Amino acid sequence: MEEIKLSVQKEFEVRFSEVDSMGIVWHGSYAKYFEDGREAFGKKYGFGYMHIFRNGFYAPLVDLKFQFKKPLPYETRAVVETGYVDTPAAKLQFRYRIFLPKSDILICTGSSTQVFLDKDYKLVLFNPPFYEEWKRKMGLL
Amino acid sequence: MEEIKLSVQKEFEVRFSEVDSMGIVWHGSYAKYFEDGREAFGKKYGFGYMHIFRNGFYAPLVDLKFQFKKPLPYETRAVVETGYVDTPAAKLQFRYRIFLPKSDILICTGSSTQVFLDKDYKLVLFNPPFYEEWKRKMGLL
Amino acid sequence: MEEIKLSVQKEFEVRFSEVDSMGIVWHGSYAKYFEDGREAFGKKYGFGYMHIFRNGFYAPLVDLKFQFKKPLPYETRAVVETGYVDTPAAKLQFRYRIFLPKSDILICTGSSTQVFLDKDYKLVLFNPPFYEEWKRKMGLL
Amino acid sequence: MEEIKLSVQKEFEVRFSEVDSMGIVWHGSYAKYFEDGREAFGKKYGFGYMHIFRNGFYAPLVDLKFQFKKPLPYETRAVVETGYVDTPAAKLQFRYRIFLPKSDILICTGSSTQVFLDKDYKLVLFNPPFYEEWKRKMGLL
Repeated sequence: MEEIKLSVQKEFEVRFSEVDSMGIVWHGSYAKYFEDGREAFGKKYGFGYMHIFRNGFYAPLVDLKFQFKKPLPYETRAVVETGYVDTPAAKLQFRYRIFLPKSDILICTGSSTQVFLDKDYKLVLFNPPFYEEWKRKMGLL
Repeated sequence: MEEIKLSVQKEFEVRFSEVDSMGIVWHGSYAKYFEDGREAFGKKYGFGYMHIFRNGFYAPLVDLKFQFKKPLPYETRAVVETGYVDTPAAKLQFRYRIFLPKSDILICTGSSTQVFLDKDYKLVLFNPPFYEEWKRKMGLL
Repeated sequence: MEEIKLSVQKEFEVRFSEVDSMGIVWHGSYAKYFEDGREAFGKKYGFGYMHIFRNGFYAPLVDLKFQFKKPLPYETRAVVETGYVDTPAAKLQFRYRIFLPKSDILICTGSSTQVFLDKDYKLVLFNPPFYEEWKRKMGLL
Repeated sequence: MEEIKLSVQKEFEVRFSEVDSMGIVWHGSYAKYFEDGREAFGKKYGFGYMHIFRNGFYAPLVDLKFQFKKPLPYETRAVVETGYVDTPAAKLQFRYRIFLPKSDILICTGSSTQVFLDKDYKLVLFNPPFYEEWKRKMGLL
């Protein structure tokens, strides 16, 4: 499996609006937890949505995967861990793990892939300079 | 009470993602039903979000009220009725009723008020010309 | 105006999934912020959804009101303040204020009213004993 | 690829609350479209959430995948096609395609897998009788 060099953990608590009629997190709510994970990553490593946008690019998701392991009931505290997967391709790849704090109890795993579009919504085939620069700063190049 | 001259009814069915752990519509989901009602209104009378936007204005909500009368369970079919409240002020006011089809069983009532902002996000104190024109076309002026 | 004796403040940051196509919080997302406020209140004062439920009652919303003052852009940090309105009626009433931290800049105000239903979904006209007890503990009786 | 013998198409229109700050459908909203697809499938073939539940089972998602091909702007009409993947395992597998009506323009593809849990939340390793019966009725056995 790919080596994860940069990662961030963010703790959260399940909100009432996120659970379904079984009283457990509705599967669609996990998309928010993963996004919260990416935002925490962006904040920690200086590479958030706005950073990308201000550099003249969009980074839409092209692939998103979830494996649900255990249900997560209302009011439970959990951790989303977001790991950056280093790849030479002009892509942003993340791996996610949601688990209960201070335990090995795994709730959900998943992954996402984003590509870069320029301001004309054209796919960018090579790493944009600001991305290369960020990678260098992170010691990935 | 104000006379409602223009109104539209839209039938819908409660989605799984809209109910809470009691199996009934989560109160926050009603904001969507009201918005669906406004969109149905916009479609019927040629006055939707995009129409407003293309004429150079935004119409943000400044006031939104709900009275919840009865719970709405998963898979129930219901109707949202959206009525336009005619007012001389530079505002968009709607009244809403959600009820079970072919019945008097009332689920939720409410209201909303929108103001007009120009492209610089400045509040518009008089009716924008395109709004006046639309009112005339609707026989309201 | 009613005197607010118990209140709680909770800071939050606007998530990407909560903003609309203007890049500001979609009005429907405020229902979540108010609910987050009630949950923070429940946690601080020992009176949350689960506490009510375990005592054999539901407390559905019957009234919910929002006044939107200013837009709240993506990534902004804000505070939701939830104040308990003491009333002799068998109701739970809250007032809300969302504002920017360390400032007087008001984003949104609102209120909510909940009634008590017993396990047969019948409206309770007098304060349930556990609610009286809680009020006493809080110095409200 | 697996042969799809049962499928259903459902047309929908992008709601304002489903788009993000780019004015296109937020990726997390696709979980709703897929669920709408499953509900349409359940309705057409008599195999919805409530049918499963009334037979004494839950069918939680264990796997969910999305491939995003093209953005879907606000107010666009699109079709979600949900195909049932026949498998001997005690699972429910669906494939999804979201596309523009009367066109080959593909917006999103994906898949989901559900397992069966009994009322004690224990994983069911063999097809529950009601599922076998349904398969027989559908000509799949």
